[in-house]
Amino acid sequence: MDKLQMELWFTEKQTPDHGITSKVVRTLHHEETEYQTVDVIETRQFGNMLLLDGMVMTTDKDEFVYHEMIAHVAMNTHPEPKDVLVIGGGDGGAIREVLKYPTVETATLVEIDERVIEVAKTYFPSIAGALDDPRVRIRIEDGIRYVEKAENAYDVILVDSTEPIGPAVGLFKREFYERIFHALRRDGIMVAQTESPWFNRDLIARVYRDIADLFPIARLYTASVPTYPSGLWSFTLGSKVYDPLEVDEIKLHRPETKYYTPEIHKALFALPKYVAELTK
Amino acid sequence: MDKLQMELWFTEKQTPDHGITSKVVRTLHHEETEYQTVDVIETRQFGNMLLLDGMVMTTDKDEFVYHEMIAHVAMNTHPEPKDVLVIGGGDGGAIREVLKYPTVETATLVEIDERVIEVAKTYFPSIAGALDDPRVRIRIEDGIRYVEKAENAYDVILVDSTEPIGPAVGLFKREFYERIFHALRRDGIMVAQTESPWFNRDLIARVYRDIADLFPIARLYTASVPTYPSGLWSFTLGSKVYDPLEVDEIKLHRPETKYYTPEIHKALFALPKYVAELTK
Repeated sequence: MDKLQMELWFTEKQTPDHGITSKVVRTLHHEETEYQTVDVIETRQFGNMLLLDGMVMTTDKDEFVYHEMIAHVAMNTHPEPKDVLVIGGGDGGAIREVLKYPTVETATLVEIDERVIEVAKTYFPSIAGALDDPRVRIRIEDGIRYVEKAENAYDVILVDSTEPIGPAVGLFKREFYERIFHALRRDGIMVAQTESPWFNRDLIARVYRDIADLFPIARLYTASVPTYPSGLWSFTLGSKVYDPLEVDEIKLHRPETKYYTPEIHKALFALPKYVAELTK
Repeated sequence: MDKLQMELWFTEKQTPDHGITSKVVRTLHHEETEYQTVDVIETRQFGNMLLLDGMVMTTDKDEFVYHEMIAHVAMNTHPEPKDVLVIGGGDGGAIREVLKYPTVETATLVEIDERVIEVAKTYFPSIAGALDDPRVRIRIEDGIRYVEKAENAYDVILVDSTEPIGPAVGLFKREFYERIFHALRRDGIMVAQTESPWFNRDLIARVYRDIADLFPIARLYTASVPTYPSGLWSFTLGSKVYDPLEVDEIKLHRPETKYYTPEIHKALFALPKYVAELTK
């Protein structure tokens, strides 16, 4: 008879009634920072997994979906993004994608919790390695306060927040999007991650309405992220001038990616009916 | 202090190392049929859930995605589908979608396990109710043997199988698709469910190649199903004449749906790079 071995499984209750469970090879890191609990576990299915307050933020295997999709739609819609701001996103994944555009001169990361950056550099070098690029500026600060001070300063702003509880609540409010509007240049574009079309329908509808009120152009799109609640994630884009549906596909940049391509740029906005309804 | 209550959670290991877990209100049904284990549980998040051999087949809340998406792309590409065959799919969901087309004269369901149909009628009336439609013919038989006997008989054939283990293994083989080709009329279309682009990459690539060898037109598309492994599901279409990318959107039927619309018909084929690679 084989020897029995302990099996360690990580379970995230993504709602009070449903979640994912994943086999753990080993736990790599655990700490309580000033803002949250930060854990890193090695899973068999998805490789290293970063957890904030017990919620999956990113994994080695499926991180490319979220990071490419929060960045490339806006970056490839703006004809010449030079100064880009990422709010949250301490793992560096959104910054890595932003840096793939040769027009970029500065990529600023505003992360409230320095420890997330440090932990990501240790356990997710292929994600956080981009933070060493000379174009990157890191500010350890509350994103809301940082944006208040900026005016007419950025071409693209990405809101790469955690869930709308705890320190990230303010990142889903109308006043925050107003500040982002002012922090953007006259032809700027913003994208915010806006949770699951299955589990966060009210939130998506509200954020979409706020952004559509503030920006001449508002667009919702989705991407399939296996380790995120429901496996489907939404992003809301607000743009002052450029419409992602009006780009000339032939002229788009072709960054090195695993998910995003110029060929799917416009098709991303063809939403299933139950998702499209959130924009009415 | 509150009284403690037992919490019942159902967990499906969708791979040996990863799965979903869902809170159970009550178990409604359990039986061992000639072919498999059939369970129905009531979950808090997704309502009633049908399990075959412990794997989620369908749930009240997200069944519309899979059933609409296996049916409407082919049904709305064929200009006049009259005779439709569904292999597997004993819950009746694919048949329900097929019946939304006024041209349909017969919708034949070939299901190997009669008990699945009976259990679905009891616990999923909004899905299986369609099986009482006078256009529906039910055959309790092995799909492979049924298709062998048919020639030039169907406009659309949908392969709504379980996972490629046990009784369904033969439904993923090249010889089976050859038989389907012969069972289709000279302008027929087939669609097979082909599992997850995350967990079943080899299978998808193989089935796509087989179908592309046999049919002049082969197309892969996906849909997001929260309770299926990885949350992303693939469908492979083979067509003798009509290309889903060449339809005139204006002329498409507009069935009553929650996911599929004529507006997304062509966009469904704009695949993320890591999925598109499976067709090369």
